[in-house]
Parts: sequence; C-alpha cells; structure tokens
Amino acid sequence: MTAGTMFSSGGPAPDVVGSLEGVCSGRGLDALSARLVGLRGLLAGDLDDVERALDAVGHGLETPAHDSARHLLGRGGKRLRPICVALASHVGAGFTPAARTFAIAVELVHNATLLHDDVVDLGDRRRGADAARMIYGNAASIFGGDWLLAEALCRIHAAGVDGVLARMLDVVKEMVTAEALQLAARGKVQASSSEYFRIVQGKTAALFRWAMFAGARAGGVGARECEALEEFGSLLGVAFQLVDDVLDFAGDPDATGKELLTDLREGKMTYPLLLAMDRDPELGPALGAHCAAEEASVDPELARRIAQAMADGKVVEDCLELASRICKDAARRLEPLPSSPARSALEGVALATPRRRR
Amino acid sequence: MTAGTMFSSGGPAPDVVGSLEGVCSGRGLDALSARLVGLRGLLAGDLDDVERALDAVGHGLETPAHDSARHLLGRGGKRLRPICVALASHVGAGFTPAARTFAIAVELVHNATLLHDDVVDLGDRRRGADAARMIYGNAASIFGGDWLLAEALCRIHAAGVDGVLARMLDVVKEMVTAEALQLAARGKVQASSSEYFRIVQGKTAALFRWAMFAGARAGGVGARECEALEEFGSLLGVAFQLVDDVLDFAGDPDATGKELLTDLREGKMTYPLLLAMDRDPELGPALGAHCAAEEASVDPELARRIAQAMADGKVVEDCLELASRICKDAARRLEPLPSSPARSALEGVALATPRRRR
Repeated sequence: MTAGTMFSSGGPAPDVVGSLEGVCSGRGLDALSARLVGLRGLLAGDLDDVERALDAVGHGLETPAHDSARHLLGRGGKRLRPICVALASHVGAGFTPAARTFAIAVELVHNATLLHDDVVDLGDRRRGADAARMIYGNAASIFGGDWLLAEALCRIHAAGVDGVLARMLDVVKEMVTAEALQLAARGKVQASSSEYFRIVQGKTAALFRWAMFAGARAGGVGARECEALEEFGSLLGVAFQLVDDVLDFAGDPDATGKELLTDLREGKMTYPLLLAMDRDPELGPALGAHCAAEEASVDPELARRIAQAMADGKVVEDCLELASRICKDAARRLEPLPSSPARSALEGVALATPRRRR
Repeated sequence: MTAGTMFSSGGPAPDVVGSLEGVCSGRGLDALSARLVGLRGLLAGDLDDVERALDAVGHGLETPAHDSARHLLGRGGKRLRPICVALASHVGAGFTPAARTFAIAVELVHNATLLHDDVVDLGDRRRGADAARMIYGNAASIFGGDWLLAEALCRIHAAGVDGVLARMLDVVKEMVTAEALQLAARGKVQASSSEYFRIVQGKTAALFRWAMFAGARAGGVGARECEALEEFGSLLGVAFQLVDDVLDFAGDPDATGKELLTDLREGKMTYPLLLAMDRDPELGPALGAHCAAEEASVDPELARRIAQAMADGKVVEDCLELASRICKDAARRLEPLPSSPARSALEGVALATPRRRR
C-alpha cells in the first residue's frame, strides 16, 4: 500500500480498510488514521464477505453477458458504496444479513451502470484493464448490465426490508435520467455549473445516499439518524464525483486506471472545465471548436492550453478545496449521531475523499 | 380493418378488440368470432385506459432517452401482453386497478427489451417506422430501455400485490439470459431446435406467462386456475414467437413493419431455418458460409435458395401447423376453468395466433 492512494490498487480482493488507513500515513493525518484503524477487524470481515459474494455472482451462467459482468466485477474497484452500506449499518445493530445483501446489491447496481456507460461513451479502458465491451462486445455489456441490475433488485427484494427496494427503483430512474441529461448536454460548452451539479446529484450522489439509507435501515437506525446519514451520503457522492472529474485532468493514469481527458473526449463539460473557461475567456471558443468537430481525440495544443488555463486559474486547487468543503459539510451532518467507531470511520472516509488519487 | 390481420394496423390507439374479431371474419371462423365479439365493450374500455396511460409515460421528462422510449411506445404495437393481463383478470374479479397497472407495466417491460434489442441487433426498422435508435441514437435507446424497465418495476411495486414483483424480476433475468444465449449462438448453423425452444421460453414465453399470472393475481383468481392461466400464457408465448419467426421468411413487410430475412441477417438460427436445413442437407453449408462471412446483407441467390428449400420442404406450413398444435394445447389448459367470456376470448386469442399476419 503506497501512501497517497485512498483505496486499494485494484484486483480481485482489495484490502479496503488498509487502504483507508494508507491515505493517512505519512501525511500528518494521524488523528484521521486513528479514526480508521480501530475499525479494521470489523469492516475487513464484512468486506471479505462481500468480495466472496461478488465473486460468486452469476455462477453457472455461461453467456457473454455474464462473462462481461464478471470481468468488470473481478477487476475490483474501490468498493466505496459497499463500505458506505457497512459503516451505516454499524451506526446501528451492525452488518446484519440485510446489510450484507444491500452492500452486494449496491456494487452490482454500480457495475450495471458502468457496463452501460462504457457502451454509451465508447470507453475502452476501465479499472486498469480493457473495458468489458472491448473483450465481449457492446451487446454483451448491454445485456450484462441489464442482468446485473435485475440480480441486484432481486436480492434487495428478497431482503424484505420495508421501503428499501422502492427507494432503489427511484434511484435507478434518477441515475438514468441524469445520464440522459448528460448525454443531451454533450459538447455544449455553454453548460452551467448548476446543470453539472444537478447531473452529479442524479448520476452519483443518489446511489451513495441510497447506500447510507439501506445500511441504516438494515442496522435498525432511527429515522432522524438515518436522515443525517443520507445527507452525508449525498454530499459524499457529490464530492466523490467532483474529485473524479478533477482526476480526469490531473490524475495519474496508472492509479486511476484510465487515460487523462477521457471526459473531454466524450464531450462532457465537467466542473473543472467550466471553472477553467470561466477564468480564461479564450478557452471557451477553443473547446467549442473541438466539440463541434466531434473529434474522438483531443488535439495536443488544446490539451496544453487547458492545462495552462487550469494552472493559471488554480482550477485543480479550487475544485479540491470545494470538494474538501463539501466533505466537511458531510462530516458535520453526522454531529447529531453519538460517538462511535462507525461515525468516526465515516468522517475518515469523508476527509480522505478530496485526497484520493484513484 | 382488413380480414387476415389479427391485430390493429399500428398507430397510437389500436382498436385491439376489433382486430381480434377481424381475424375471424370471412375465414369461416364464425364460432371464434362469436367468442370474441361479446367481450368488445369490456376489453375496449380496459385497453383505452391502458393506451391513455402509455401515452402519458415519462411525461415532463425531456431527454433523448425518454424521447426514444416515447417514440417506440407511440408506434402502437399489438399490445398482446396487456390483453393477456386484462383477460386473465376478467377470469377473476375483473380489470382492477392492480390489473391495469400490470397491463401497463408488461408493455413497458416489453418495450424496454425492444429498445435494447434494436441496439444489440443494429435493427433499423420497428413497427413500420425508423427504430428509435435511428432517430435518437444508440445511447438514448440504452438509457431509454433502462428507464422504462425501472419505471415498470416501480409501478408493479406500488401495486403491492404479493409475489408479482418478485416474479417479474425473475422474468427479467430469464429474458436477458435467453437474449444472451441467443447472442452466443449467433451464426452457428449447427444450433438445435431444443436450444431454439429454450431461448424462446426465456425471451418471449416467460413474459406472456407473467402477464397471465399478474392478471390472475390482480383479479384474485385461485391458485389452481392461476396455474392453468400461466401454462396457457407460456404456450401462447412460444407459439407467438414461432409465428414471428415464420413471418420473417413468409410475412408481408407492410403488415409486419420490418423487412424479410431480418433474423438471418442477424445470424439468428430460428426454427423455420433449422427445419429447412434438416430437409435440405445442402442448405446448411450455404448458410454456414453466409454466417462465416458476417455479411450484413443476404445474397439474393442464398435468399432464393432458402425460399426454395422452404417451399420444397413445406417448412412454413409445418411451422404454422406446430404453432397451431401448441395453441390448441394452450386452449386445452383452460378446460378446468368455468366457462366465461374471458376464457372464451383467451381461447380466441390462442386460435387466432397461428393466423396472425403481423
């Protein structure tokens, strides 16, 4: 585990708690580290259990669609949404069988959306490997995503916790609608930051919010505390996406597992880019020309110009500062909760998020 | 309404009951016609209601994904699955609000699968018009299908009838798995008819079975009668698909709304083709060469050869004869049910299915 990566370096069985600690070591974040270290035994057990279950998903079903789903699931990933479910459950009675089910299901839903997104965006890399669609084809990834979604919903339904399935169905509609809005906004340089945050709310924050809600409900957490956890999840999701969008410009491809400027190639006007255009009025027309040409690649001169505008305007710093403020706000939502290792760990996750490198 | 078409000729508000009657007139099927005519007032009211609800789906959501879904829904279609729900409900207490919800939902699920299928198959025509993906793009159809599925599941969930949502979730997995198996079998001329019927069971019959189950449950039909209705639905679905596959070789494109030999272009080895190969041993190698070349079009000489093999082997006649036997078997499953206009109409639907032209 290298310092500076929030989560594991991918692969089939990520040591997620270890990586949560890793972000703290050597960064003068001993207090944060202390918050996380106490939870290792508890959460590692939960997450090993989730990994084993994810490994077994679709067992015995031998079609390209299932191969596609298993390929993506097998690449690991940050498993941040299952972590949210587990920690929210520990605010209450702990990682009950229902919490375990929801932790698995939220990762399945997330992976279902990734399979479809990669077909929509023609993405060729994911989690440091070829995207599933590059190996099994677009059709397999479409059906693979459909199957994962149905499988997740089956599991949530079977858990039988009141209200949790209905909320997930609403979240799925919200996510798809946000993705569709993003699709419609492609290549429109005059996009607004309020539109950006509305899309992020739907495509990312809604599922984080559900993860906290489902974990809390599975752990029998009371209504007021559940509401606080949901607000935490929603804000964490927004900050998480904002950092993701920063990493598209300023990340290390070896750590993120995907190339730089992927969003720009796909015509997505993310917040860092909107901020850069705001601070360098000449950047807008150049980006407009790029989008109008519907180029699949980004001209090196345009890339250089964006990098310059971002550096001159301190865009990355300001985006991370904003992510940091959102995360502090998230942590504050937990103040009504009694002190507990779970609350402390959630605060740790929030404070580590703006520092993540993948 | 011309005689010889089972269902309406498409468009936004199909006169479905009228078209059910239409198939009987002028064909010496007066007994069958009599079965259907009594139900007109009742079912027409139900289905007008369903049409109005389908018209309002996604109202206020202005994205390419919703446009894509509305385009397809607006093209009409046979609405045979909602008819199944409605008729099954009339075996019991009638078209209750839950039955209405299920009738709408089953059509939404069906349309969701069509949107994804057209992307997977690169289909360019559907219901006598450009496929949604040709107008709004593949991405919009992927998200449009995702959204329709989630919307359907929301509605089924909200109806609150025990067991109906769980069954639909299983059906969705079954449908997707069958579609994925079909994908894997593409272009393999050595496919078996048992494999064909296994795929048809999953991709078509499962949803017809669900329609009967959901309608019966919504109408409060008892367990034994419900089981009989489900068996009817499953057999009807198989026959329906078999006729569909015959129409790909012997249909009238103006009536079916799609070109001939579409399945063959997509490398799908349907039962009529398997039967033709069985009866003309020289056809297999010719088809194998076509599939190996992965041609997007069918060579006219190959098309002529297939037509010849089908004519010489009486393939169309035998397929329709098989569909007819399956439909009679379906009608027999209803014998334990007391006589009623609904049972009579279901028998009418079964007997009309092998005669349908679209």
